[in-house]
Formats: sequence, structure tokens, C-alpha cells
Amino acid sequence: MAVGAFYHKLSTVFTSDHASVVSMNLFVALLCACIIIGHLLEENRWINESITALLIGLCTGVFILFTTGGKSSHILVFSEDLFFIYLLPPIIFNAGFQVKKKQFFLNFMTIMLFGAIGTLISFCIISLGAIHFFQKLDIGSLKIGDFLAIGAIFSATDSVCTLQVLNQDETPLLYSLVFGEGVVNDATSVVLFKAIQNFDLSHIDLTTALQLIGNFLYLFIASTVLGVFAGLLSAYIIKKLYFGKLIRHSTDREVALMVLMAYLSYMLAELFSLSAILTVFFCGIVMSHYTWHNVTESSRVTTKHVFATLSFIAEIFIFLYVGMDALDIEKWRIVSQSPRKSIGVSSLLLALILVGRAAFVFPLSFLSNLLKKSQSEKIELKQQVTIWWAGLMRGAVSIALAYNQFTRLGHTKLRENAIMITSTITVVLFSTLAFGLMTKPLVRLLLPSSRHVMSLPSPPSTPKSLTVPLLGSGEDSSWANGGTQNGPPPSTLRMLLSCIPNRGVHHYWRKFDNSVMRPVFGGRGFVPYVPGSPLEQSVHQWHCS
Amino acid sequence: MAVGAFYHKLSTVFTSDHASVVSMNLFVALLCACIIIGHLLEENRWINESITALLIGLCTGVFILFTTGGKSSHILVFSEDLFFIYLLPPIIFNAGFQVKKKQFFLNFMTIMLFGAIGTLISFCIISLGAIHFFQKLDIGSLKIGDFLAIGAIFSATDSVCTLQVLNQDETPLLYSLVFGEGVVNDATSVVLFKAIQNFDLSHIDLTTALQLIGNFLYLFIASTVLGVFAGLLSAYIIKKLYFGKLIRHSTDREVALMVLMAYLSYMLAELFSLSAILTVFFCGIVMSHYTWHNVTESSRVTTKHVFATLSFIAEIFIFLYVGMDALDIEKWRIVSQSPRKSIGVSSLLLALILVGRAAFVFPLSFLSNLLKKSQSEKIELKQQVTIWWAGLMRGAVSIALAYNQFTRLGHTKLRENAIMITSTITVVLFSTLAFGLMTKPLVRLLLPSSRHVMSLPSPPSTPKSLTVPLLGSGEDSSWANGGTQNGPPPSTLRMLLSCIPNRGVHHYWRKFDNSVMRPVFGGRGFVPYVPGSPLEQSVHQWHCS
Repeated sequence: MAVGAFYHKLSTVFTSDHASVVSMNLFVALLCACIIIGHLLEENRWINESITALLIGLCTGVFILFTTGGKSSHILVFSEDLFFIYLLPPIIFNAGFQVKKKQFFLNFMTIMLFGAIGTLISFCIISLGAIHFFQKLDIGSLKIGDFLAIGAIFSATDSVCTLQVLNQDETPLLYSLVFGEGVVNDATSVVLFKAIQNFDLSHIDLTTALQLIGNFLYLFIASTVLGVFAGLLSAYIIKKLYFGKLIRHSTDREVALMVLMAYLSYMLAELFSLSAILTVFFCGIVMSHYTWHNVTESSRVTTKHVFATLSFIAEIFIFLYVGMDALDIEKWRIVSQSPRKSIGVSSLLLALILVGRAAFVFPLSFLSNLLKKSQSEKIELKQQVTIWWAGLMRGAVSIALAYNQFTRLGHTKLRENAIMITSTITVVLFSTLAFGLMTKPLVRLLLPSSRHVMSLPSPPSTPKSLTVPLLGSGEDSSWANGGTQNGPPPSTLRMLLSCIPNRGVHHYWRKFDNSVMRPVFGGRGFVPYVPGSPLEQSVHQWHCS
Repeated sequence: MAVGAFYHKLSTVFTSDHASVVSMNLFVALLCACIIIGHLLEENRWINESITALLIGLCTGVFILFTTGGKSSHILVFSEDLFFIYLLPPIIFNAGFQVKKKQFFLNFMTIMLFGAIGTLISFCIISLGAIHFFQKLDIGSLKIGDFLAIGAIFSATDSVCTLQVLNQDETPLLYSLVFGEGVVNDATSVVLFKAIQNFDLSHIDLTTALQLIGNFLYLFIASTVLGVFAGLLSAYIIKKLYFGKLIRHSTDREVALMVLMAYLSYMLAELFSLSAILTVFFCGIVMSHYTWHNVTESSRVTTKHVFATLSFIAEIFIFLYVGMDALDIEKWRIVSQSPRKSIGVSSLLLALILVGRAAFVFPLSFLSNLLKKSQSEKIELKQQVTIWWAGLMRGAVSIALAYNQFTRLGHTKLRENAIMITSTITVVLFSTLAFGLMTKPLVRLLLPSSRHVMSLPSPPSTPKSLTVPLLGSGEDSSWANGGTQNGPPPSTLRMLLSCIPNRGVHHYWRKFDNSVMRPVFGGRGFVPYVPGSPLEQSVHQWHCS
């Protein structure tokens, strides 16, 4: 019966009446326009890709509104399932796949501090602030669960804008912190939101609170384990079958298997009601550490760019979508009866976001600095300000969660729900546009050295996509070197010497990885060490760790 | 309003209830299983990938049937729109993108003879045969339009099985004929089917016939022009913007633009009610000739494999889907009351297919041989038998067209419609399984030299996907050479000498291409000529033509 329902749905949506053909044409053409215009504005001082897509979406929304005479209110409905099932997975998977694993795991404690503890602090402050101030604004009868949901909704940051400006080669620590925090924050806020929704919060006591924490931890751990398992399974299958040895289909098979298994991990997490975001993130990390090294060179190039491109398209799609959705008339009509309240709520939420973020970035940075010994690992004040700024933007995750919470029971026309939806949209638009426009100038002011690098054209012979964090330590060029496989990575005296100070958890993990994991699941060890190549440094870095 | 309807649909299908999550998991897992099992059976003498997917689909269908107690008849409904809008475009685009253009255009006349004229002959024979014999079987009241539709439905071949066995380096002429005929045949039969549906065929006179032919030609030419235009537009945009020169996003942008514009061409053709198959095929040819050369090296590797992988997944998806759909109980229940008639219809159709194909392959081969001068260009008898055999299989196009014709007006429970649907499924299953299983042995018998090549493992250092026709004349390795751009291709005396005999339409096209088209749209001319490289011959071939 399940399959039947699925097929029925498929046949509903895939019926190609004229209307949907027109809108698909429109949407694909808009996506192309966003890419082209985003490219043309690349060197602009203020604008970035997300803002372009958001503005184009807004303009299209206005255009459609005028075409239909302002009548149809439900022209653009934000579908959170479209977002959570089709658009978010490629973005998060790509984040895991392209993350510089060593940087990520070396800063793991700090990233978890910011991403998990920091999000919890921000969640508490926004929730408490909302409880305290909203009663004075008299916007209707929100329950305790609603206030907690508001906390989770506005704790979900969107650091895409800042990542587009930061240069990860100049400020690797800062980049990995902002990047890592963004991903962990996404997962934390969604898991938090789910945990809140699963519980009856009308009377909170110690048992409920403990259950809430237990649920949170269960979701966190089970999702991670599932993601790691899926990644290892794909590595094992591809290594055992060794597709490369056969003539036909090898690359296509490998690419298809990697894409399908990544998606399968996401859908399995959905099936078990886990946090699919965390699952697919860790699946991406494991796949890039093991699976990616077991495939042919052309598969490596292809998968790397396929995941990046999917993520890129999904990002543009989301901003375009949010921009088009922002003009849904009906909810604005309800709100327009009390514009002052709506503005009040939005400003209050923005203020809470600013405070809530400051309340953990600076103390936690201080804490993190206390634990670090070397000066280079400490987070300077300017960097702290950048981290604070990077997490001020709110994006599609907030909108999706807000829709889920405030349109869930079908009571969309209640005033308090309409106000919360429109306030969320206002906060997202304002923070993305206003804060987003100021990001480039601000980062250049705080970290002046990045200015000239931004406008430096790459040599035309090796243009590469640097927008996503490059695959860890020069794996990027493995297909270009190619050829010799199975050769153990050679070591030099310098590498051995510089390895000594770096012992720790990571060191024992490397030993375990080399002696137990890699013989079973494959992984790096195929790329020869080429002295003097531009990759020397990063390869060196890798072998030492 | 159009956009509204689209969004409403989106939100309907993207609502992630538990049922659809379960079935998506099932489907993705089955796709993975097909890939893995298909790989394991690669060296099997009989089985190929399509047959594997079909059998797995059948088994899953049986399993679901037993799970639901045989009750639910509409568990699996074949959606022709899913097929025509999402599965067919990547397959046909990839065919155009990966075709060896020179071989294709050198044999253009023969391919068009087989693909267009041959399909028309086959269509006439099957239609006339059906009109003549079906009346004796007494299967109900089919109209003249139905008989013509049957002709079009069973003229659509599926040469995937044969292409998987043929070796295009050993028998380039044969391969390009079978491959080219397959694509043109797909387009011809769909265009024919559309033309038949657009006309009132209750009383055929000369005017109607002329209109039918006019409609057919209009669809053919307009679709081709649209595809060429879309391809040239993408080449122009990417050349003008030159994404490669910038640091960020260049590869992702290029890949995204190519994929989106290819899909846009398909959707535009749908919008204008043209033949989207032809449009996307020519868009693929133009993109591989111009656009593909304007992008960075990594984009080239990526797009090549992305299109091949999408096509690969879509193919497996289709066979899996057809296999699962074959067991829709309801239509079999109606037919089971008169099993003899159903078997009679299926056998008759199979016989008509065999005759209809023989009736054009051998005469047209004779005609084609008359026009060719050199012995190597002529089609030998063994090759003619192979071509005949290659087009005996019927596939998803037939099923999709049959569903369109015989379930169109909602009268699915009419006996004649049920018989036609089940007969189509029987013919597809029988021809794919029985003829498909015999293809490998037959081809090895007829073309014995291909046997040892099939089982020859490719060198592990450069495993490449050879299932799809490789990109014309060594373009494949352009990313590996890379570097120097804009250098005009050098010419040698040998090349000049061997160019002389080859003049013709192709020669003048090359002149026009080099002097008018390439300066505007970019294209080849970036890859340096490397003497002594394994590509020498093909590069040489290219420059001469």
C-alpha cells in the first residue's frame, strides 16, 4: 500500500499539464539567470550570489503578483518537505564531503562548543527573551512550546554569505570554525526543534527535561552512527567490487552508487525519524575519507564537482524560492491590520539574535583560548567579531521550521501564527539583505589582507572551484597525477620531524585508521608524493598528522 | 495561476508521509542492488544490465503482490509523464552528447534511411497487418486511429541490449548505424504517434494525409532548430562570460548552466508542443561540439560523466519500473477470461515486428550499398542481420505510448484496451528477455572478433566508461593535456594529403564551422596536437575531415 501511495503521488505530480510545464520553464530559466547574473556581479563590492537570487526571487514574486492582479494569495507556498527532502541533503552532504577533515577534527572541540553549546545558549536567550517581551506586545496566545520553538527557529544560522567572503587559505582556523559551526548549528537546531515537538511541554518538570536531553542525545548519536555506517558500507562495496577493473560502465557505476547511497543514508534517517542532516553530513565525511579513494580518477573529479554543483543549485534554488515566497499576500493581509506589532516583533527578534549570539561567541572564545597553548590556535578579537557576524544571518532553515511550527495544525489564519510567519520572513529578508550586504566590507575591514586575494584571477590553465572547502590536503589533483596506485606514501625527514608536536587524539585515530580501517575500507594511499609540486605543503601536512 | 498549480502539486508530492519515505527507500535500494548485481553479472555470457533490472523489477512486483495478498491491483501504475519528462531526456541528451559526431554525420544519410524511412515502412506493415489480422481475432472495436497508433507503438525499438554488446572500436560503422538508428527511430515513432493523435482519422483523404505529412515535417524541423538554438545559446553564454577566469564557483557554474540549459531546451520543446526528444538530442550534439570545449578541464570530465551517469540511472530505473509494472493485476484479470486471444495478439505482433523490420533493413541496406563507393563503407550481410536483430527489442517507449493511447480516455476497463496493454507488456517482456538473452551469443557468432575484446580487462591506470560512445575523436583526453589554449591546430603534410579524398558536404561544413561558427561559439581548437600519442589517429582523422 505504501508503494501504491507513492506511485499515486508520483503520477499526480508528473502529469504534465500545460500549467506546470510553464512554471518549470520559468523556474529553470530563473535559475540560469541567477547563475549568470551572480557571475557578472562576482567582483561587486557588496552583492553576493545568495543576495542576487533573493532579489531575483522577490522581483519575480512582484511580477507574478501584478500579473494575477494581486488576487491569488496562495501562488507561492513554501513547502518545507521540498526543502528538507530535496534541497537540504545535497548542501549538507557536500559540506561533509568537501570539509577539510583534518582542520575540522583538530578544531572539533571548539566547533562543538560553538555549534552545540553555543546554539543551546542562543536558544535559551531567544526563548526566554520571547517569553518575557512578547507578553507585553500582546500578540495572541502562544504556548510554552511555541516559545521554545521560536528559540530553535531563530538559533538556526545561515553562514553562506560569510563563507563566500572568507578565504580559507589565508584564515584556515577562522574558516573552519565558521564552516563547522554552521553545519553543527543546522543539525543542532533541527534536532532541538524535533525534540521540542515530540514532547508535551504544557508542564515541564525534571523528568520531562531529562527526557528532552536524552532524546536530543539519542538523535545526535544514532544519526551519526547511521551516517558513518552508510559511508563505510559504500566504501566496502566499491572496494570489494573494484569497479575500475572492468571495461564498461565503471565510472558511471561508481558515481551512481555514491550518489544513490548518499541519498539512501538520508532517506533511511528519515525512515527511522532520526536527524537526516547529521546522518548525511557524517556520510559525506566518511565517503570522502574512504569511498572517494577507492574509485577511478575520473569518478573522483566527477563526484567532487557533482556534489558541489548540486549543492550550488540547491542553494540558489532556496534563495530564489524564499524570495518568491516572501510575497504570499494572505499572511501579510492579516498582519497589516496591526503593523506596529509586527514591526515590534521583528525588531525584538533581531535584537535577541544579536544578543543571543554575542552571549556565547565571546565567552566561549575566551574558554577555547584558555585551553589552547600555542598563540596561532587562539581566536583573536577581530576573528571573534567575524564569527559573531557570520552567524547573524537567518535563512531557509528558519523559514522551514517556522512553517512547520506555525502552519502545522492548519490554523494559518490565527493572528499570532500569521504574525510569527511574517516576522520570520522579515527577519530572514532583513538579516540576509542588510547584514549580508555589509559582510564583504566588514570582513575586508577586519581582515584586510583578504582584499587583494579576492580579486586575484586564477591562472587560466588550472581554474578550479574554490567556493567549497577543497578536499582535504591536495586530493584535488590525484586524478591529474593518476597512474601508479597502491604505492605507500613516502616519508621524508622533515615530515617526520614536524610530526612530533602534533600527538593527541588525532594521532591515535590515525594509527587505528591505518592499521584497522583502511585495510578493510580502502582510502588514501594511492596518490604518490610529488616533491616540489604546489601540493607539497598540503600533502606533507596530511602525512604528518 | 500556472505557478500556483505547480506549487500546489509540488507541495502535494513533497509531503513526506511515512508511506512515501518507505517506498523511496525501497526504490533507491533496488537501484543500488541493480547496479551491484549488474556489475557482478557483467562477464556472464547471457545476461546484461537491462535484463537484470527487468528481472529484479519482476521479482519485487511478485513480492509486493504477495505482501498485499494479491488484492491491490493498482499498486504500480506506469506514469508516462514520469517517463517522458524525467527519465527519457537524460538518456536521449546523453546519446546526442556522446555520439561520435563525425561517424554520425558521415553516415547521416544511411542513418536517416533506417531511422526515418525504415520506421515508416515498419509502421505501415505493422498497421496494415494489425488491420488485416485483428479483425479475424475479434478483440473488440478498435478504430483506424488505434491501428495506426499500434503501428507507431511497435515501431519504437530499444537497441540498448545490442549496443551493450557491440564494440564500437572494432565495428565503428555498425555501431554508429545501430546507435544512430535507435535515436532517430525513437524520435520518429514519437513524432509519428503525436501526429496521428493530433488528427481526426475517421475519414482519411488526400488533404488529411498531406496535413499529416506536413505536421510530421514541421515537428521534425522545428524541434531540431530549437535544439540547435539552445545548444548554441549555451555555448555563446559560456564563451562570453568565460567562467574559467574567475576564482570562485567557475566549474560548478559551468556544470550547472550546461545541465540546466539542456533541461530547459527539453522543457521549451514541451511548452511549444514539439518533439522534445529531437530537441534534446540536437542540443546534446551542439553542446558537445561547442559548449563542452568552452569550459574548464574539470567541467569537461564532470559533465561527460554526469550525463552518462544520469542516463545510466534512468535506464535502470526504466527497466526496474517496467518490470514492477508488468504485474498490475487488474488488466490481467480482464484478459485472463480470453487467454487464447491475448496470446494470439502478442504472437501476431511479434511476427509483424520481425517481418516489418526485415522488410526495410535488407532492402535499405542494399540501397545504401549502391550509393557507397568504397568496400569498407558497405554493409555486409552479417552486419545487416545484426542491424535487423538490434531493432527487434521493444522497450519503455512502446509501453509509454501504449498507455497514452489505450488508457487516455479513462476507459481502461474496456476489453480491447486491456488486451492491447497486456499484449504490449508481453511483447516488451518477451522481446527483451528472449531476444535480449540471445543477443550476446548471436553477436559473438556473427562478429567473432569481438569476443576476446569483451573480456579483456582495461588497464587499471586508465579505466574509462566505454558503454557510451566516446566523445568524438579523442576529445576525451583534452582535460589531461590541458594547458595551452587558443593555439590553432597544426597541420602536417600527411594530414593534408589524406584530406583530399574526403571532400563532400562534411568538408564544406568544416570550412563554414571554422570560419563562421567557431569564432562566435567557441569549440575545439584548444587541444594541442601531440604526435605519437595514442590519440594521433583520431586527432588526425578529425583535422582532415
